[in-house]
Amino acid sequence: MPVVEFYPAGIKVDVPEGTGLLDAAAAAGVSINAPCGGKGTCGKCAVRIISGTPVVRQEGAKTAGLREGEFLACRTSVGTDDIIVEVPEHRLAADDRSEEQEISSALTAVLQSPSRKPLSETISLTLPEPGMDDGIADLERVLRELKKNIPECPGDADVMPDTMRKLPDVIREDNMNITAAYCSEGNRLYVAEVIPGKKAVQYGLAIDLGTTSVSVRCVDLNTGTVLSTMSGYNTQVACGLDVISRIQYGKNRERLDDLRSRAVETIRRLTGEIIASCGISPDDIYSAVVSGNTVMVHLFLGIKAEYLRLAPYTPAVMKIPPMRAQDAGIVMNPGGMVYFSPAVGSYVGGDITAGVLAAGIDRSGGVNMFIDIGTNGELVIGNSDFLLTCACSAGPAFEGGGIGCGMRATRGAVNGVSVDPVTGAPSVTVIEGVKPEGICGSGVIDLMAELFLKGFLDPSGKFRDDKGSPAISRERRRGLYEMAGPDLSAFGSSLFITETDIDNVMRAKAAIYSASQLLLGHAGMDFPDLGAVYVAGGFGQYLNLNNAIAIGLLPDLPLEKFVYIGNASLEGSTMSLLSREHWERQQKLADSMTYINLSDEPEYMDRYTAALFIPHTDFSRFPSVMKRMEKKNGK
Amino acid sequence: MPVVEFYPAGIKVDVPEGTGLLDAAAAAGVSINAPCGGKGTCGKCAVRIISGTPVVRQEGAKTAGLREGEFLACRTSVGTDDIIVEVPEHRLAADDRSEEQEISSALTAVLQSPSRKPLSETISLTLPEPGMDDGIADLERVLRELKKNIPECPGDADVMPDTMRKLPDVIREDNMNITAAYCSEGNRLYVAEVIPGKKAVQYGLAIDLGTTSVSVRCVDLNTGTVLSTMSGYNTQVACGLDVISRIQYGKNRERLDDLRSRAVETIRRLTGEIIASCGISPDDIYSAVVSGNTVMVHLFLGIKAEYLRLAPYTPAVMKIPPMRAQDAGIVMNPGGMVYFSPAVGSYVGGDITAGVLAAGIDRSGGVNMFIDIGTNGELVIGNSDFLLTCACSAGPAFEGGGIGCGMRATRGAVNGVSVDPVTGAPSVTVIEGVKPEGICGSGVIDLMAELFLKGFLDPSGKFRDDKGSPAISRERRRGLYEMAGPDLSAFGSSLFITETDIDNVMRAKAAIYSASQLLLGHAGMDFPDLGAVYVAGGFGQYLNLNNAIAIGLLPDLPLEKFVYIGNASLEGSTMSLLSREHWERQQKLADSMTYINLSDEPEYMDRYTAALFIPHTDFSRFPSVMKRMEKKNGK
Repeated sequence: MPVVEFYPAGIKVDVPEGTGLLDAAAAAGVSINAPCGGKGTCGKCAVRIISGTPVVRQEGAKTAGLREGEFLACRTSVGTDDIIVEVPEHRLAADDRSEEQEISSALTAVLQSPSRKPLSETISLTLPEPGMDDGIADLERVLRELKKNIPECPGDADVMPDTMRKLPDVIREDNMNITAAYCSEGNRLYVAEVIPGKKAVQYGLAIDLGTTSVSVRCVDLNTGTVLSTMSGYNTQVACGLDVISRIQYGKNRERLDDLRSRAVETIRRLTGEIIASCGISPDDIYSAVVSGNTVMVHLFLGIKAEYLRLAPYTPAVMKIPPMRAQDAGIVMNPGGMVYFSPAVGSYVGGDITAGVLAAGIDRSGGVNMFIDIGTNGELVIGNSDFLLTCACSAGPAFEGGGIGCGMRATRGAVNGVSVDPVTGAPSVTVIEGVKPEGICGSGVIDLMAELFLKGFLDPSGKFRDDKGSPAISRERRRGLYEMAGPDLSAFGSSLFITETDIDNVMRAKAAIYSASQLLLGHAGMDFPDLGAVYVAGGFGQYLNLNNAIAIGLLPDLPLEKFVYIGNASLEGSTMSLLSREHWERQQKLADSMTYINLSDEPEYMDRYTAALFIPHTDFSRFPSVMKRMEKKNGK
Repeated sequence: MPVVEFYPAGIKVDVPEGTGLLDAAAAAGVSINAPCGGKGTCGKCAVRIISGTPVVRQEGAKTAGLREGEFLACRTSVGTDDIIVEVPEHRLAADDRSEEQEISSALTAVLQSPSRKPLSETISLTLPEPGMDDGIADLERVLRELKKNIPECPGDADVMPDTMRKLPDVIREDNMNITAAYCSEGNRLYVAEVIPGKKAVQYGLAIDLGTTSVSVRCVDLNTGTVLSTMSGYNTQVACGLDVISRIQYGKNRERLDDLRSRAVETIRRLTGEIIASCGISPDDIYSAVVSGNTVMVHLFLGIKAEYLRLAPYTPAVMKIPPMRAQDAGIVMNPGGMVYFSPAVGSYVGGDITAGVLAAGIDRSGGVNMFIDIGTNGELVIGNSDFLLTCACSAGPAFEGGGIGCGMRATRGAVNGVSVDPVTGAPSVTVIEGVKPEGICGSGVIDLMAELFLKGFLDPSGKFRDDKGSPAISRERRRGLYEMAGPDLSAFGSSLFITETDIDNVMRAKAAIYSASQLLLGHAGMDFPDLGAVYVAGGFGQYLNLNNAIAIGLLPDLPLEKFVYIGNASLEGSTMSLLSREHWERQQKLADSMTYINLSDEPEYMDRYTAALFIPHTDFSRFPSVMKRMEKKNGK
């Protein structure tokens, strides 16, 4: 078999002739950034062939920006002879990163609560010595004492054969002193492990299983201290960028197993890094809470998600029963329990119930809104009396998809733009201050808002011919805006935003705005009735709220009503992990959420169409934007 | 590595230098009969070396009876060069055999009961079509319908990840028609499997896990028909002949794993033969009941049994919770459930509670006795109001152990003897009518009874010098009785029974008789109060009751009071498998059994000593024996 060597990593792999370079890289453990999932449409996976003659099929692929000797890895496969491939550093997928996320006040309150009971607990006991007059078996002895000492301990216990196997030696090793780790679920006690002596440490994992990124957080269950949070790409990205393409990819058992093992491996990798950096043992981790959208959780478990995208859109499972870690494949004590945040519907998953928990809107008196903007927009409104939810397909525009030079909010992405009111020339900020490679969601929003407010873009999203700018041109009747010239961009060619790109953003923002409006309408309300709007998701990190309002993505409310709550799914998962009270609250709020199916709502299309303007066909809904325009126009 | 070829099987194996021939044979799948477990004391594992030079250490081993060129396999190991070994046909361990056991009337009644509910059940359902107005998830839909249709179905269900994985396709394959197999345990429903369409077949396994032999029976759970019963040697025999030597062997995890895999493989082998001969699929087997003594069940699960033989003799587990077949390693549907008959103490195991169930003494009005005679003697007395049990160590004499020419009741064993009243010459019957190789338990009992009744053996078990016989001789003051001369025996050398052999049988029968007596004494009773005596175990198959009474093993009661019930453990397991009512009855009778620890009973030693006579120091306890002697003596 031909050998592929990856440079500068210096890793060689034998692969069969015809293997794609992305697969060969995966086999070598070299992760190449391929945001379009290998479709050839993003042009981001360029590699340089140093020697050898690969088979290249570049037709139809985005090859603009490729330098001499570079090929798209997704369009290149191994021929008959060995090859050496150089992966330029900026093409490598971003490394897993340790996150220093601010802990929300809601989570802090849980962490510090003296009465909180985590999902898994440990108890140290001294068993009565067995004797002729007390000859019950070891297991029965342990369970008898657990029952005596755990008030809520039920009659029934679930003990793994391996725990039974070790039990005789374990209870005798330290004079009948033992520590049992357990999870008490319903009327059942799951014994995770029994070990000799007194044991102090116990950890738990909160896991946000995102379509693009996965975050794992390790918490000390005794002290409530967050030890570490690691985030990284979900390697399922190579199988499709959004949930629909993942569902399509997972069409048979082999592919489903592939998806499953990619999700499992992603979590294992991140957990492994936490374990190594914190110097803890996986055996001391007894519980985990996994939150993800309904599709991601199906795929994590290897369950076919096909029926989620076919009417009547039924998931295989929404409330997944807790399972042993060894069945879930998570790096922790194999007898520990993995909990899954409950889903509400096919497109409102456990990440949203965890997010609502973190936002706390289920406990508020006034009506608040929770909004998670991503490829899907998920919305929840309500208070302690009711919760309504819906999901809309926003498309990947806010994550850099569907935009010619779009990219995720990583190194090299334009994340902020201002436009000169006279010349229309752009002035950009780039993540990590390097030469720009593309533009991310917050950058696109800024750019559109600036162009609109400064009069270069009309409300329908077309460049205004009456106010010319050297940055604006036309190519086959399609307007282009040059965000960075060849000399300023990372690849030596211009970065453009086109009217087509803007159109994609328009659809995305219209979907979200009209869905919010419709959801409020179901409660007989409108935006001004909202107490607070909680904005969740990585997207919000660089968001300029004024500009998000200006393009009509977010409602025109006083800025102090918006609360950016970061990775709310991870925050909520941590709260449930640390406190059974919150876990039970999460089940309750999931049960009480009413799912509004937008495709059943004839009004939705009307509202959506009305929102396909900047900021909206009904300007009166955006008084602050009108004021800003009047100011710009010198009125 | 040197190659060992086994002839006539013609199987070759590569093994490291120094490998014992028994291990090499095991590696080759050639099972050599080695009843002493490779200790060199039985002389039964002789093989012929055809070529090559093995390393032989015969010192201290029983080499009498070896022919030219024969060596004991247990004392022979592979040297540096290849060898060819012939295994004489009669040295091969007996093949697994299909048993045509008579079905007891108690079991027949269960099989034919129209209202019986087996431990696992199937139900066929048509699920309501999912629709926009009924959008619950597939799993929730299945569980909702199960709940509606199974009256005793509890709130909580245990579903394996693999069942969830298959569910979306399964429910849609045949228009929402499904069949679910399940076990309802306590307040929990274990879903074994969900399959498309209507399914009719469902099978179950009853397994008697004996120290020496293992029996597996496959039953059609719908019709209550016994499809097949297969019995074979427990390959743990190679690790020790009795439970104490097995415990000693299993001193570390590696050895415990070896014991575990031998028990698992024995059951797999027998189940595999049943599956092949009956043409059924293992996936259609949804439940199994395993009954074994406490040590055997520990070792089957890989649990250290060391503490069972150390004061205060506590088992690791007595009531083993039902477990998934995939955890137990049994060949059946991996989601099916394996149940374990409950134990009462370290030496009264699930085989006894199953046996009591089959004998039905827990339901009788009058007081009956259940007696299982093997290496351990287990005894139960009682009725519907009380049950008392004890166990005594009889030693292996009744299974052919501790007797110079003893062997199990297989081909070539003397199983019946009569003695000429004048000459003292023996007349023997041999199993399968071949030349005798040794003597089994029933043969020894016959021989002792005959020698005693005909006046050649005195009540203390010594040969009487005053009544000479050419068959009786002395060697270093020890009396010998020649059972077969060199020309009549299989190996061309005489088969002797010695006073030492007889002494071993005396101890065994005294242990059992005095234990029975003491157990009855606990209830303020004596033998004549008994309604019936149920004799269980392979031992009873060839037993001459009159002779068992004559030597004082069994009490002197009218013969019609004795009922031989064969493999009662297997019968009882089948009853529980087929009928949850009986399974629950078995739990109840196990709970109600009071265990009498003989080592706590100062009286026991006195009674035991008194029983170390033929038939007993108190002749008045055996009036029928006295009558037979008087008759023999012409009085």
